[in-house]
Amino acid sequence: MNIIPVIICGGAGTRLWPVSRETFPKPLLKLADGQSLLQKTFVRAADVATIKELLIVTNRDTYFLTKDECVCVESDVARVDYVLEPVARNTAAAIGVAAAVVRERHGPDAVMLVMPADQLIDNQAAFREAVLQAAQGAQEGRIVTFGIRPTAPETGYGYIEFDSKTLPQTPNVHQVVRFVEKPELSVAQELVAGGHHVWNAGMFCFTAETILTELEMHAPSVAEPVLAAVLEAKRSVSDDGTTIELDAAQFQKAENISIDYAVMERSDNVAVVPCELGWSDIGSWLAISELTAPDERGNRVHGEAELYDVDNCFVRSDERFIGMVGVSDVIVVDTADALLIAARDRAQDVKQIVAKLKRDNHDAYRLHRTVHRPWGTYTVLEEGERFKMKRIVVKPGASLSLQMHHHRSEHWIVVRGCADIVNGDQLISLQPNESTYIPAGHKHRLINPGVVDLVLIEVQCGEYLGEDDIVRFEDVYGRAPA
Amino acid sequence: MNIIPVIICGGAGTRLWPVSRETFPKPLLKLADGQSLLQKTFVRAADVATIKELLIVTNRDTYFLTKDECVCVESDVARVDYVLEPVARNTAAAIGVAAAVVRERHGPDAVMLVMPADQLIDNQAAFREAVLQAAQGAQEGRIVTFGIRPTAPETGYGYIEFDSKTLPQTPNVHQVVRFVEKPELSVAQELVAGGHHVWNAGMFCFTAETILTELEMHAPSVAEPVLAAVLEAKRSVSDDGTTIELDAAQFQKAENISIDYAVMERSDNVAVVPCELGWSDIGSWLAISELTAPDERGNRVHGEAELYDVDNCFVRSDERFIGMVGVSDVIVVDTADALLIAARDRAQDVKQIVAKLKRDNHDAYRLHRTVHRPWGTYTVLEEGERFKMKRIVVKPGASLSLQMHHHRSEHWIVVRGCADIVNGDQLISLQPNESTYIPAGHKHRLINPGVVDLVLIEVQCGEYLGEDDIVRFEDVYGRAPA
Repeated sequence: MNIIPVIICGGAGTRLWPVSRETFPKPLLKLADGQSLLQKTFVRAADVATIKELLIVTNRDTYFLTKDECVCVESDVARVDYVLEPVARNTAAAIGVAAAVVRERHGPDAVMLVMPADQLIDNQAAFREAVLQAAQGAQEGRIVTFGIRPTAPETGYGYIEFDSKTLPQTPNVHQVVRFVEKPELSVAQELVAGGHHVWNAGMFCFTAETILTELEMHAPSVAEPVLAAVLEAKRSVSDDGTTIELDAAQFQKAENISIDYAVMERSDNVAVVPCELGWSDIGSWLAISELTAPDERGNRVHGEAELYDVDNCFVRSDERFIGMVGVSDVIVVDTADALLIAARDRAQDVKQIVAKLKRDNHDAYRLHRTVHRPWGTYTVLEEGERFKMKRIVVKPGASLSLQMHHHRSEHWIVVRGCADIVNGDQLISLQPNESTYIPAGHKHRLINPGVVDLVLIEVQCGEYLGEDDIVRFEDVYGRAPA
Repeated sequence: MNIIPVIICGGAGTRLWPVSRETFPKPLLKLADGQSLLQKTFVRAADVATIKELLIVTNRDTYFLTKDECVCVESDVARVDYVLEPVARNTAAAIGVAAAVVRERHGPDAVMLVMPADQLIDNQAAFREAVLQAAQGAQEGRIVTFGIRPTAPETGYGYIEFDSKTLPQTPNVHQVVRFVEKPELSVAQELVAGGHHVWNAGMFCFTAETILTELEMHAPSVAEPVLAAVLEAKRSVSDDGTTIELDAAQFQKAENISIDYAVMERSDNVAVVPCELGWSDIGSWLAISELTAPDERGNRVHGEAELYDVDNCFVRSDERFIGMVGVSDVIVVDTADALLIAARDRAQDVKQIVAKLKRDNHDAYRLHRTVHRPWGTYTVLEEGERFKMKRIVVKPGASLSLQMHHHRSEHWIVVRGCADIVNGDQLISLQPNESTYIPAGHKHRLINPGVVDLVLIEVQCGEYLGEDDIVRFEDVYGRAPA
């Protein structure tokens, strides 16, 4: 059976601020073992059967970041295709384009396994078994959901009521009776006690043809623009996969609706595989904290901290030393430019801080101090009147655009790796401890010809130092005007 | 009457970590209005009468930092002398050297007003009146202490019991009956109720001769080495005052004992001026927080923060954005490299964190990321393998030593002000957006010839980047070998 895992990179993760931000969304969040949620999802997907090909749907802006995460995962997957969304249009549209792409490449009967990129599953063996059961249902023409057997009366999840009899020829696949939206606590308690309800995990299994047919039937406002966006997409073909940049004009016409509303709750062709997977949607810092074993006072610390008379706290700090005295039940998450201190039982309300930052158009909602680019990263180390300093890291073989600034000159000092630099008419090569100066108005380009990261310190001087003072002449990542 | 205020710069301020550190002690701590405790003390001292001269006793290591604080205070004080201690030897020795210096310059009958550099006094008029009363007592040959009328049964202060009758010819100066060490709460409650006890504020008034005689009588282990250390001190005379660097060999022989133990509790010549000054010894972050009016939920915020459902919290952050959710009664103090989170009612225990850092020989106990030097400051912005980056700020007219590094080369880029630079055999001048390169092994010197701060970015490259790789050839601050 040909199963094509489809990873949907979504999830703003506003409750995981300040690590998760608009330009560095939740799937990229790294756990204590150094692996991101996305990488864990990739590994999980690659392991459900003999998987050679995989499809990832992600936002155009986070494409390079997403790809960087996936290329360093070890697996037998030989080919990864990427679908790039120009704007976010919810899960119905994302699944729709994935289905169109899968059908085009693998035929209408190819079985898709749709997985959000921001969940955790503890029991891989159980997951693999559930996927095989779901895939059988999918081959029978069903839309199959995965239902997590509830371990508590959670009010933050949707529930699925299922028929107790399994469907013919498909062990453990049950007809769905109805979907229940996030319930009140008393309702949740009843549902859990009854034994006929499972949590809606947001994972699905179906053939490309099945879901496209259902979408056309129940949500033509999604299906039509989505098919057009794929038809008119720009494709970049390479040895290890195709990148499909959806047509923006078409795609943005798609209705912004979840697959649950668009199809699941309207179709009578929906089944569910009840399962116990050790599943978590990592909905808050509380969920993340619970991935670490507590010490004898209930504290969980990642980073350098000294706790004096402290209980049941979670601390995550990348760089700063944290001293805590006499506090309990507090979550502390520190990043380069923003710090969160939240009561343990209020972890859900972190999104309120993000909402306020968004209303204020504050950078700490969108950006980290380290900004990811297709060629690597830059980090603003210091900003003052008429100067700005950055650490620039260029990936091996990568190249910034050929560019020019009107208002700023740049001093470049190589501190690791090697650089080829176009500076006006000259081409120069720099080694560590060598420098060059790019006057304002000079065309220039920075290239890492080497096989290790190039690390360069840039000191900008000028009357205006905004990122928008840039004229791009050529760019391997398609960011220059045609 | 000739009153010489003597400011004793002490106070490790371990309960005010992470702002207060060994190399940046409590008197330098800036309050919300931008003035440091030291500056406030200077202003207070300059205002007690017609003060033209003032003496400051401080550690040799914090001399330049101390002086920088004082020179920018506006006052009629025309001359400030500094006594530099090579090591800390407690208040008896500090007051002893001050008395010897005052006697030498102003004669035995000069009245000294001894003030710790790390306290606050709200009511300057009351303070001025109390000082004049105390000075009268001092002229009568008394040791006069200042006794704060207690407003609560504090257990963190020493108490002074006084005779209800005032001494002859000196209004409001009372004989001291006894000193009471920090009491238990029940004892403190009795003392406060009785009305004959005041808090020992650690401020004193006496003539130079009186205190030296008392020290010789009650604490020769302090008096003798102290007098020798002043006798053999190195003096640097300038128009605005003399800097007296105590002889280290002599001074370190002085017994490490407080003036209270050494003299006050042993002498029968001690008087007290009971007063109400709005006095605070700023003993903890709680005391600092109370200097700011709370908002309607009891929060006090200095810096950029978003509080969601937060009560009775104090937040101080210089640079970072802080988001808080659902917490109460917490003190948050953020600095570039270290963060404190403490329960309001545990503010005293912050010293436990500092004690641990000291045991671990952790930098966050001693140093800030910005390090003060006689010529200005440097801030480590980034450290990586084989490179380090600093922002260097040189005061107008100041000059670093003529120096050389064995292991590191330095790239210098001027971003503000102007620089004269000795680089090997060359003397060059740089303006903003100009740079130079100092190879390892080259003698070099950085000078700010201008009238505004010079700001320079330094990128160091080399196999070893420790601060101890420095050979000094000449130094205007006496840090080069003779």
